[in-house]
Amino acid sequence: MGKRYTTSYEIAYYDCDINGTMTMPSMLAVVIRASEEQSDGLDRGAAFVSSFGLGWVITNYEIHIKRLPKVGEKVDITTEAIAYNKYFCYRHFWIHDQEGNECVLIKSTFVLIDKKNRKMSSVLPEIIEPYASEKITKIYRGEKIEKVGSGTFLPYRVRFFDIDGNQHVNNSIYFNWLLDVLGYDFLTHHEPTFINIKFDKEVEYGQEIESHYEVKEQENEKKTLHEIQIAGQTYCEANMKWRKRK
Amino acid sequence: MGKRYTTSYEIAYYDCDINGTMTMPSMLAVVIRASEEQSDGLDRGAAFVSSFGLGWVITNYEIHIKRLPKVGEKVDITTEAIAYNKYFCYRHFWIHDQEGNECVLIKSTFVLIDKKNRKMSSVLPEIIEPYASEKITKIYRGEKIEKVGSGTFLPYRVRFFDIDGNQHVNNSIYFNWLLDVLGYDFLTHHEPTFINIKFDKEVEYGQEIESHYEVKEQENEKKTLHEIQIAGQTYCEANMKWRKRK
Repeated sequence: MGKRYTTSYEIAYYDCDINGTMTMPSMLAVVIRASEEQSDGLDRGAAFVSSFGLGWVITNYEIHIKRLPKVGEKVDITTEAIAYNKYFCYRHFWIHDQEGNECVLIKSTFVLIDKKNRKMSSVLPEIIEPYASEKITKIYRGEKIEKVGSGTFLPYRVRFFDIDGNQHVNNSIYFNWLLDVLGYDFLTHHEPTFINIKFDKEVEYGQEIESHYEVKEQENEKKTLHEIQIAGQTYCEANMKWRKRK
Repeated sequence: MGKRYTTSYEIAYYDCDINGTMTMPSMLAVVIRASEEQSDGLDRGAAFVSSFGLGWVITNYEIHIKRLPKVGEKVDITTEAIAYNKYFCYRHFWIHDQEGNECVLIKSTFVLIDKKNRKMSSVLPEIIEPYASEKITKIYRGEKIEKVGSGTFLPYRVRFFDIDGNQHVNNSIYFNWLLDVLGYDFLTHHEPTFINIKFDKEVEYGQEIESHYEVKEQENEKKTLHEIQIAGQTYCEANMKWRKRK
């Protein structure tokens, strides 16, 4: 329904981990870049949004993975602003291979925040109008995130370069914290098929976070539960499903 | 002398740190991508090099910075394979702004290594020929790197996602370790004008490195000396010059 934008991308070695498949942070950087290109083309780039004192923040990704793109592979990135209500904007991203097969579908939720007080703003018609996405009254409720029960954790210190030009910890760093705890063996023998991640609070420079996790065995797959905590408070939570790598 | 390749790039917020200027890792990722595009265009991409059992490794960057590119800015990236001798290939990169001013010049040294035993290979004519760079007998000696004298250090553990598709710690991670130790105050009040970095040995997953450093005051600038060590052995060393940020 909304306007679609497609661009192509060739996956570099530095987009990949030791398995030679694309990492989540690289995948998200690439799809976000596509949405920024679309916004620029519609004269709704970061500078325009910023002229209202606002900025975009992503609160949720629901990532459905049929196949992870591989190093050297060319893919098509497509994005569409699907719908919005008073506070939330819903945008989808697709990654297709050169045969036209869908590799990844990412459903994302964006909100506008006031850059000064970091509070949520209602969606402004001036900003959203050119995307031609549908105005709805409903709030999409994604799959519920199951909480970490009896797990363990590793601590991580927020480093200078974890903070990006938006002045807060880049989303890719959360993935780094969430996944690193699973360890080499797990990460070289499994690949994700589904990730549901919710960003609750913004972590700041100098803080030390705890990356809590729990691994659950289910029929033919593993499920991992994740939570980033500081002093018992939840900053980010995620559920992931995994299958064996071939 | 060699063939030149130019491409343009718009700097995203995730390419920048809290200062809103491009980080070294993002800058290097972007220029390396340009050289890969050139190589692909000459049918000398990673797959071709790999067909000889070889891969490119960068051993040295000498980075001259007149001005750091800013978030949202469009720049031109130019690269040229300048010259090569029996073992070393010399490649320059330039970043120019839209007014044609040179922002950054990066002089790099590449070597070919055998992917199995990680030993250096001599430069193969089949690989280097299409770049039309000059064959020389001389070995370029860059500016000498001054060693850390009486400094201090912070420890960093190698994380899963620090290892890239080339199976070793991505160069960007060394910059993260080298610079993070300087701290928030230093990094928000200074910007680099010159960086000379030498990669001596490859760090592996699970190792814990020490990022040693020393800050020296000189007339109108600061100089920092850096060394990545494991068990007293040097893995990477660097010198940087800094001026006050405006």
